Amino acid sequence: MIFSNLKINDNEQIYIQIKNYISDMISKGLLPDNSKLPSTRELSQILDVSRNSIVLAYEELKSDGLIYSISGKGTFASSKNSHSTTSWSIDWNIMENKYSKIANELDIIKSEVPWRSDLISFKSISPNGELFDMEELKKSFLNRISLEGHKLLNYGYAQGYKPLIDYLLTYMNKKSVDTSNKDILITNGFTEGLDIILSSFTNPGDYIICENPTHNTAIKIMKALGLNIIGVDINKNGLDFNMLEDKLKIHKNKIKFSYVTPSYHNPTGVVMSPENRYKFYNLMKKFNIAIIEDGFNEELLYSSSHIFPICSLDKSSNGVIYIGSFSKILFPGLRIGWILGDKNVVDRLESVKRCKNIHVSFLDQGILYDYLYNGGFEKYVKKIRKFYGDKFNFAMECVDKYIPTEYILGDGGLHIFLKLKNINTRELLNKCLEKKVIFMPGDIFYLDSKGYDTLRLGFSRLSFNDIEKGIKIIGESIKELVY
Amino acid sequence: MIFSNLKINDNEQIYIQIKNYISDMISKGLLPDNSKLPSTRELSQILDVSRNSIVLAYEELKSDGLIYSISGKGTFASSKNSHSTTSWSIDWNIMENKYSKIANELDIIKSEVPWRSDLISFKSISPNGELFDMEELKKSFLNRISLEGHKLLNYGYAQGYKPLIDYLLTYMNKKSVDTSNKDILITNGFTEGLDIILSSFTNPGDYIICENPTHNTAIKIMKALGLNIIGVDINKNGLDFNMLEDKLKIHKNKIKFSYVTPSYHNPTGVVMSPENRYKFYNLMKKFNIAIIEDGFNEELLYSSSHIFPICSLDKSSNGVIYIGSFSKILFPGLRIGWILGDKNVVDRLESVKRCKNIHVSFLDQGILYDYLYNGGFEKYVKKIRKFYGDKFNFAMECVDKYIPTEYILGDGGLHIFLKLKNINTRELLNKCLEKKVIFMPGDIFYLDSKGYDTLRLGFSRLSFNDIEKGIKIIGESIKELVY
Repeated sequence: MIFSNLKINDNEQIYIQIKNYISDMISKGLLPDNSKLPSTRELSQILDVSRNSIVLAYEELKSDGLIYSISGKGTFASSKNSHSTTSWSIDWNIMENKYSKIANELDIIKSEVPWRSDLISFKSISPNGELFDMEELKKSFLNRISLEGHKLLNYGYAQGYKPLIDYLLTYMNKKSVDTSNKDILITNGFTEGLDIILSSFTNPGDYIICENPTHNTAIKIMKALGLNIIGVDINKNGLDFNMLEDKLKIHKNKIKFSYVTPSYHNPTGVVMSPENRYKFYNLMKKFNIAIIEDGFNEELLYSSSHIFPICSLDKSSNGVIYIGSFSKILFPGLRIGWILGDKNVVDRLESVKRCKNIHVSFLDQGILYDYLYNGGFEKYVKKIRKFYGDKFNFAMECVDKYIPTEYILGDGGLHIFLKLKNINTRELLNKCLEKKVIFMPGDIFYLDSKGYDTLRLGFSRLSFNDIEKGIKIIGESIKELVY
Repeated sequence: MIFSNLKINDNEQIYIQIKNYISDMISKGLLPDNSKLPSTRELSQILDVSRNSIVLAYEELKSDGLIYSISGKGTFASSKNSHSTTSWSIDWNIMENKYSKIANELDIIKSEVPWRSDLISFKSISPNGELFDMEELKKSFLNRISLEGHKLLNYGYAQGYKPLIDYLLTYMNKKSVDTSNKDILITNGFTEGLDIILSSFTNPGDYIICENPTHNTAIKIMKALGLNIIGVDINKNGLDFNMLEDKLKIHKNKIKFSYVTPSYHNPTGVVMSPENRYKFYNLMKKFNIAIIEDGFNEELLYSSSHIFPICSLDKSSNGVIYIGSFSKILFPGLRIGWILGDKNVVDRLESVKRCKNIHVSFLDQGILYDYLYNGGFEKYVKKIRKFYGDKFNFAMECVDKYIPTEYILGDGGLHIFLKLKNINTRELLNKCLEKKVIFMPGDIFYLDSKGYDTLRLGFSRLSFNDIEKGIKIIGESIKELVY
């Protein structure tokens, strides 16, 4: 197009006109440094002039140093003649808003010790990739692509892929959830679920109540959105209901949401008892505080029988929004989670989802649906319960044996939480790092300074040998710090 | 777990204790309606009592109507005895914030005429799925899964899949972009790219300048984030630079961002000339207004030679953030786009991306990378240029022949934009709908009422026959409205 603006006239030799035009474009910056020019053949066609004229023009431009050729690659605008334009520097620090600043400050990946292959790392609580059913997944992909590939690869619906939504409604139904007035929105994992709910129904300064400690990503999202977070202790006795009731009375009518993880709570691994779920629900109902229930790793029960999620108590009410995710144990790389809530709530969230990023990958939703529908998940869960359950028990034994603690928390899941006896776990981490062992210091999960002597041990990706070796080193390091 | 709390004592018959315990749980709501009870065998193991006691307890509970059995399925808590608890109703209307309200109000899918199979619809500008290379895609999937399936299915990095990032840096390099001080963040399509940039670098009330009309999703995002939008007309002469300069002078030092789509602009289809790109860049630089460049359908050139994106003028400066996306023409269902910007900018956006939804599906990124790397995209683009180019020319001819317009816009792409002579296109749409033809009324793309007599015709998914038939009907309907 830049060349089609060149109108050849009869007053001057053609190759001169071409040469001058290109030279002019270069000096104006319209042919940026190192940008490719059309071949002599192409340009002769575009301008409808003889190829000879182009060759001549290019030769003169080359000898002027304005363009250069690389044999087999083409002809390019030279960078040597770049007129030294003043550069333009925007101060992005000033541009950046509070939301981004907090999201950056609390991005632990940028501050915590990174994983290295020579370390025994207890940091991760992501699943062990070696357990993934690759063959089942391949089957699901090929099956969906042949059945409805064109559909899955084109634009879909913000709410999600209908067969997956229906599957999940039935799935929640089996967990005793009355879904008659409920609906589901598919999200990019738990994280997007929480972000969408809070960014639709809160304003900066709003109050939210949650467990202390709690999932650090949730803390980051709540803080970045400017919420006032009220923490209620969770420890070896579970959630402190006296403290909860006190806080509810103090902040009466001010609290908009509660956020809880009743099963295999992150980081403590504690499971809320059925009685306490009932009690919690009724308290929130009494104070009219909407509940966001994090269904985190609910599937990972090793020894206990099924416990109903809090949202199953909500029946025809609209007080609970549940966030589910298979991605924590199944395929985190696919980033698929869901929000289950009142139809009216999900309808609004659907538009917000569309506004933020249209929808979750339909290909991934199709594959996941096929995999679930064909029983892949059930088979997988049976396998991993045994696999992770054995590791959980072993890690518990090792901690008992090697680490002096105030108490140990964990009813299952992929991690154990330790409270030490007045040992600063940041100092401990430095000591352990020297011995090539790392873990997640507990402070990142706390809303206050209470967690300074706590830590989380994720074991899902470690061998039995490394679990014992690593825990032993942590125990030894504690002794060194004490004496 | 709920059952393991039952401690059997010696003072009463075992089956009575079990019966009373279960009855108590049901009345407390701890065994929700229709929730499944353990089998008699399971419960006898959990409680370490004889199976007979369980059978007896279940029988009594059944005759009391508290539980019921379905043969082959199990035993469940009855719903008949559900104590009528008062239901809890949160007013989500009051909870909803302004952001969600605007995202809902401007969600055109909820208000526009939906697609039906009996309609000739010119609404869509999404690609024709029949052109997708399924076999190439399958190869890429199987290849990536066998090479690094475990990695792609587990948690990845917020910035994106490294091979894809490197591929795209080279790709942008070939478009004459100096990437030495630039980096790339992978996003869930263009939409998330724009949302992440604006939600990180603007506050409600900030000013942004853009073309009028422009992409309706961009308008929605800007309005939902509470921005003051200044529109500059784009029409048959391209962007109105006089108006632009006037607005820049009026709002001097107040405008933070500009948003432009220089190639195949949506909805007008206009391509900004190289000279005007240069002029635009220098104006923004002069007024220190950061540019967000929408690389929309840049690849879809039919007749013109390559035009450099505005970000290629930015070189060692940091004033332009470019948003690219293959998803508009390649695989929209995968939702993969990218942001190219100054390293420091991308570093901040990476943390915001992590805060919002961790990362884009690594499986999808892996598949797309493999597909691109193996030349699938180049082959595909050659094929679709011809396919869509032919349709574009044909649709242009039909419009010329059948529709009386003030002017027709479109230099390529998957759509044509029409300005009629004082015909309200909402009224026209109603008339056409009666004849089973629909299109996108232009008003949704405008920041003011100027677009009332405009419309966009997307033709990518229509046959030649339907294009002619539909355009003829639109033309006839206009005549009916005039006379």
